[in-house]
Amino acid sequence: MSHTRSSDARTLPMPDLRGSFPGPFATSPYADAIEEQTAHWLRAFPLIGSPGEAKALCNITAHGVARVLPAADRDGVFLCADLFLWLTAFDDVHGEAEGGRDTARLVRRISHCVHLLAGHDEPAADDDAYIAALRDLLHRFRERATPAQYLRLTAHLRDNLFGILWEAHHLDRPDQVTLSDYCAMRPHTVFVRTVMATAEVALGYELTEDQRTSTAVRELEKAVADLAGWINDLASYAKETDRGGPTPPSLPTLLIRHRECDLEEAFRLASRMCEGQASTARLRITELAANSGNALADHARAMEAVAASYVWHIGHARYDSFGEVGAMQ
Amino acid sequence: MSHTRSSDARTLPMPDLRGSFPGPFATSPYADAIEEQTAHWLRAFPLIGSPGEAKALCNITAHGVARVLPAADRDGVFLCADLFLWLTAFDDVHGEAEGGRDTARLVRRISHCVHLLAGHDEPAADDDAYIAALRDLLHRFRERATPAQYLRLTAHLRDNLFGILWEAHHLDRPDQVTLSDYCAMRPHTVFVRTVMATAEVALGYELTEDQRTSTAVRELEKAVADLAGWINDLASYAKETDRGGPTPPSLPTLLIRHRECDLEEAFRLASRMCEGQASTARLRITELAANSGNALADHARAMEAVAASYVWHIGHARYDSFGEVGAMQ
Repeated sequence: MSHTRSSDARTLPMPDLRGSFPGPFATSPYADAIEEQTAHWLRAFPLIGSPGEAKALCNITAHGVARVLPAADRDGVFLCADLFLWLTAFDDVHGEAEGGRDTARLVRRISHCVHLLAGHDEPAADDDAYIAALRDLLHRFRERATPAQYLRLTAHLRDNLFGILWEAHHLDRPDQVTLSDYCAMRPHTVFVRTVMATAEVALGYELTEDQRTSTAVRELEKAVADLAGWINDLASYAKETDRGGPTPPSLPTLLIRHRECDLEEAFRLASRMCEGQASTARLRITELAANSGNALADHARAMEAVAASYVWHIGHARYDSFGEVGAMQ
Repeated sequence: MSHTRSSDARTLPMPDLRGSFPGPFATSPYADAIEEQTAHWLRAFPLIGSPGEAKALCNITAHGVARVLPAADRDGVFLCADLFLWLTAFDDVHGEAEGGRDTARLVRRISHCVHLLAGHDEPAADDDAYIAALRDLLHRFRERATPAQYLRLTAHLRDNLFGILWEAHHLDRPDQVTLSDYCAMRPHTVFVRTVMATAEVALGYELTEDQRTSTAVRELEKAVADLAGWINDLASYAKETDRGGPTPPSLPTLLIRHRECDLEEAFRLASRMCEGQASTARLRITELAANSGNALADHARAMEAVAASYVWHIGHARYDSFGEVGAMQ
């Protein structure tokens, strides 16, 4: 998108989230162990060809998951880290790189994943590393999650794969995407609702249906979900445009189009949108965290850490080196 | 697929399933009421432009659902009929007809459905009849289903929508699809696992996790799922090829390719595959139905009726008039 590329991208306005999420953010004591474990897991399931890219992905995933789950046990953080490594690698290798060129091929790859997610896990002769790795992940989650948690997780994973497909069909075509379409799909492409679902599994709490569908929980989750995708768009904008090639729909490019503004104004608008959702999230976290000893308080703290892991990226110096890879993407 | 078209399609070998499913098949006392109700529902949600096609679809859906749910209450059969009308209409109008020409447009339509399925049901300004109708259906299912039943149903619906997308990407391209890919996806494109999930809701039973993952239940469901898709392929072959235009991957066309045989031999092989799965299903139904007073017996009888509704189509005179529309598609 040459009309949105700018050599000044690194000096564009960014959201100031210190009021809502001042930091410092808690981190897991297992951060280094996660990095080692994910590297080990990648040797069993070689998802990424380049050793340098694999190492970078393990590093950023470990730091992201360590911030999402500062209080989870070792197995919990390992499991979540492996899952987000898988999602990010699938997106990088098969989504943008390959899917934009041949969407039918991406559809076939996803069909193999859907088959596993739908509960059919018999190995096939043509299974590749991604399918073998997904089978391993689902087996480990099934052991740890309640049946309903597992159903929610596998539903979110389907939505992530569909989101990757949606992006592949709309690379460099923001004109075909409305702002409301983008806002609906972005949480799936940034994997944030899957992060939320895995936090519930790793931390061992479960909301009741009434709690889950309450206005407070829904509004908190929506605020964190929007924030995650928008922050990721803003933080990765310079890298995405600098590297050339087709780019997926993003908040700045859609705002330029829908509000008829320039890039700087789009970043200013987007930053304000982020600040608004961060503020909403903080209010609901405070409200829900007051339910001491209740799953709602556990959930409030979990959502706070999910938000923090994305907020942390704005100031994360390594972001520029690792590109699109956020806490989870 | 001109090389697979044949003027003799109507005299090709068909499976003989009388040994496993001899009939006559039980039918709901509400069959006529279902037809009226679906016609009424289509007036509220105009999913189909042509009054003739709408009438035909209500008729075949009513007869199919009446055979799937001979013992369910009125609200249960109405709800399931409306859902399968929606799925069939979406597939006919947006899947094959439109999706093959513009897969990105189909992806965007499905993204609106995924947004609802993921639990975000706030109405949007650009909602069309399909989205409004899906919102109505999900609201009614949420009222009737347990939380886990609702999660399973919405997972299967995601798989149906993905299946429609998979077909749209592979119209007239059976060379890109392996037999194992086809077998994995066909249950989703014929909606049969969704039929099973709705039967559980409409009949008010629920398997435990141990029952659901038992070999007997999994084998029964797989046999019925395969049978449904394969029967539909064989029964709709003549119509699909006669009407011209691109065709989705089907068992006969894949067998011709993978077994290097002619159309008649492909039908003979496919018929034997159907007879094998029908026989497996019958054995498991007999075994599970012996668990009197247990949800397993309810499930065995439900799966028997699901299978019967597809088997019934082989001899159903109206099939030729309504084309692809099977019990559920």
